Amino acid sequence: MAEVGAVGIVGGGVIGAAWAARFLLNGIDVALFDPDPEVERKTLEVLANARRAQTRLHGAALPAEGKLSFAASVAEAVSQADFIQESLPEREDLKQRVLAEIDAAMPAHAVIGSSTSGLLPTKLQSVMKRPDRLIVGHPFNPVYLLPLVEVCGGDQTSQQTIDIASALYTRIGMKVLHVRHEIDGFIADRLLEAVWREALWLINDGIATAAEIDDAIRFGAGLRWSFMGTFLTYRLAGGEAGMRHFLHQFGPSMEWPWTKLVGPKLTDELIDTVAAQSDEQAAGIGLREYEALRDNCLVDVIHALERSDFAAGAVAKAYRESLAGKEAVKLGSDCGDGHLLTCHTPVMPEWIDYNDHLTESCYLKLFGDATDVVLARIGAGPDYVASGFSFYTVETHIRHLGQARLGQKVEVRSRVLGSDGKRLHLFHAMTNLDTGTLIATGEHMLVHVDAKAERSASAPESIAAAIRGLADEQQHLAPPDGAGRSIRMPG
Amino acid sequence: MAEVGAVGIVGGGVIGAAWAARFLLNGIDVALFDPDPEVERKTLEVLANARRAQTRLHGAALPAEGKLSFAASVAEAVSQADFIQESLPEREDLKQRVLAEIDAAMPAHAVIGSSTSGLLPTKLQSVMKRPDRLIVGHPFNPVYLLPLVEVCGGDQTSQQTIDIASALYTRIGMKVLHVRHEIDGFIADRLLEAVWREALWLINDGIATAAEIDDAIRFGAGLRWSFMGTFLTYRLAGGEAGMRHFLHQFGPSMEWPWTKLVGPKLTDELIDTVAAQSDEQAAGIGLREYEALRDNCLVDVIHALERSDFAAGAVAKAYRESLAGKEAVKLGSDCGDGHLLTCHTPVMPEWIDYNDHLTESCYLKLFGDATDVVLARIGAGPDYVASGFSFYTVETHIRHLGQARLGQKVEVRSRVLGSDGKRLHLFHAMTNLDTGTLIATGEHMLVHVDAKAERSASAPESIAAAIRGLADEQQHLAPPDGAGRSIRMPG
Repeated sequence: MAEVGAVGIVGGGVIGAAWAARFLLNGIDVALFDPDPEVERKTLEVLANARRAQTRLHGAALPAEGKLSFAASVAEAVSQADFIQESLPEREDLKQRVLAEIDAAMPAHAVIGSSTSGLLPTKLQSVMKRPDRLIVGHPFNPVYLLPLVEVCGGDQTSQQTIDIASALYTRIGMKVLHVRHEIDGFIADRLLEAVWREALWLINDGIATAAEIDDAIRFGAGLRWSFMGTFLTYRLAGGEAGMRHFLHQFGPSMEWPWTKLVGPKLTDELIDTVAAQSDEQAAGIGLREYEALRDNCLVDVIHALERSDFAAGAVAKAYRESLAGKEAVKLGSDCGDGHLLTCHTPVMPEWIDYNDHLTESCYLKLFGDATDVVLARIGAGPDYVASGFSFYTVETHIRHLGQARLGQKVEVRSRVLGSDGKRLHLFHAMTNLDTGTLIATGEHMLVHVDAKAERSASAPESIAAAIRGLADEQQHLAPPDGAGRSIRMPG
Repeated sequence: MAEVGAVGIVGGGVIGAAWAARFLLNGIDVALFDPDPEVERKTLEVLANARRAQTRLHGAALPAEGKLSFAASVAEAVSQADFIQESLPEREDLKQRVLAEIDAAMPAHAVIGSSTSGLLPTKLQSVMKRPDRLIVGHPFNPVYLLPLVEVCGGDQTSQQTIDIASALYTRIGMKVLHVRHEIDGFIADRLLEAVWREALWLINDGIATAAEIDDAIRFGAGLRWSFMGTFLTYRLAGGEAGMRHFLHQFGPSMEWPWTKLVGPKLTDELIDTVAAQSDEQAAGIGLREYEALRDNCLVDVIHALERSDFAAGAVAKAYRESLAGKEAVKLGSDCGDGHLLTCHTPVMPEWIDYNDHLTESCYLKLFGDATDVVLARIGAGPDYVASGFSFYTVETHIRHLGQARLGQKVEVRSRVLGSDGKRLHLFHAMTNLDTGTLIATGEHMLVHVDAKAERSASAPESIAAAIRGLADEQQHLAPPDGAGRSIRMPG
């Protein structure tokens, strides 16, 4: 099946606009239709938020943005689309009517994903001429950041349709959860709804306020839920005896009246109470400010989970690697001018200061990474370090000549200035590839050490020979500007 | 009221042992009683986990550990305690019997917190001679990391008891949620129970597996729940129209049968199914490995939320500051020998390499922080930067002379080597206070810049005068060893 190149979005509310942003930021063109006269302003606002958040999350690993156009009709939005994401209000009759319209206007190869959070695909597709082309692709707010998408087919959905949608959602950084049995609320919303109804009862019965209920989640189980669900959490709570013991122990409490079946009746009085408590909780802080805070926290939490390569962190990491794989920059290879290419990266969100500039200590981090590439090249990489030997940096000299901003790409080219069998003298030059300027140089003296004995020692002949070989390859290079400098006041 | 200095723990299971660890790591002595012959081994295992996790979370900001002793009886565990944490199995008759025993043996001023997750304090205290001394202090697993503790008094609990318990829990880094109305399951467990029962129904009805249900949480709402609860999340989902609009929109769905009241009957068959799915999900990875992964993720997520000073991140930050405040190291002041004290910190978890050593680039980070302290001292701090002027580092020279490990304290002492009204020449010396050795020096040339014009400019007279004043105070210091060096191969 050909890769999706153009997406049509029908319905441009909070969900539809965020879908548009996610596709666009993955280099896919989007045509969007919504009858709202303000659709353009609202969509561009969501896109700006999404661009900021995704850039913080993935840096310049993201491909060039796709093109966004606003269609004048459903037919115009879908007629050139390989994939259509329907994000209309949650009314079955409305969705059925428009899905039939989409079906009639879209290309023969196209597939439709419906964003419905609870309507059954079998019912939605029942009015379509090509019902096999519909699946549910149910996302979570904010769609441009949360990875989860529930994919659920109806009775007439084809396997090919499921495969096309799953591949597309995965390609744009999402985690596909295949809902194998069509039920109201699918899987995630049943759990969300259980919490929501219980929470409303707690307010209805005067037990706790909105802010207290939120605190009960975010300072406790919510922290665990960001990377483990309910079952893995309770497995650990069961201790050495495990899940079976846990279940037996809690069997009796299953019949205690700790949750209520349906939510409380949303009377005017209850709505007043909840709305007032929500206002109090928000403490006058506006929606946009909270959205920015939410997005910052989500990005930081996902980055945090990347440290363990787990849960949403593993999805983000794999996604970024899938994007990076397309570039195929090979570190440690010759740049063509005799230098080694030792670093090639966008400036990542963790590396910037409050001005969005690459921060001072990160220059040394990148030079340190470049040094590691040189060391791997001469046979002193991680395996060698694991064997108990290594090169330690004993002296560093950095010149700051320019700057790099978030998302700009920087490159480091490196060379050996000298070696005596124990010492290794390196020189790195960092260029901002977006501006084409040299922004820093790093000069370093390293000493070969026996890490266990904690003392310097001559490098083995294999490494010494590799250093000599590299130095020979680079001996035609002119001495670098700025090497051998000391820091002094002029005059 | 006097500060709690000694705690008695009655019941040393997963919860009791983790309570012991949290108190100990906050410098509070603990006497623990549990009839389990293996209590010592199990408690020390939990303490080792907790020590590792809390050190990653807070570094050496933690005070010296308290002393742990294992008592031979309930009376021995509580007779010298200012505070008792009861963590017995969840049986009302058992808890009532032992609480009466504790009450009889504890000092007159002592207070008891019960870890019960659902029994009512009014019933628990009904058999006590001093019922006013009992509250519920309900924690969440792992107790040594999750900040939430629900504090709930019974009919006879005194305000003083609530105040003592709340102050103690806050002091050890927890977030107190005061449950104002005594109900089964308090607040948090009602929400957890709603999710748990719904999740068991999904398995019972064959809709989804344990792993799928966990994925439905951790890739979606769970990420939001780590810092916002249900209400703030839905407030944002309501968009510009807010919570009231959201509620009106969702009113009808409240009566859809999306959750079930009580959990399914835990038949042997259902237990078999859930246990088997849990085993499959765990994929042969052992309990301890998962616990370490969970603790790593929790620490990283809490650190991530510190970036926005929000939710659990705000609690951790305030807690660490409350600990740091006790040391009262004043940065920017004279060390007594003419140098400025510009950095005094434990080596934090984010700063170390795979060997637990302070990583190369973090030396420059700490020297950069030290430079900021010098700049603040001469009137070029954040306010000055906000006005559009600043000093930029143009050249850096670092010598690495030693190392520092996770949790060891390092200090930087700084001096001005020269200035000409535009340039500022600084020298920093970093000492590992735990080993008493000089581990690095940093020499830096800075240039005063007009940030908007993006060019160098003379510093204003007020700053130039402040630099001269500082240089005068330091002119009696001998020239520092290692200043003015350039990097060269010897010979």
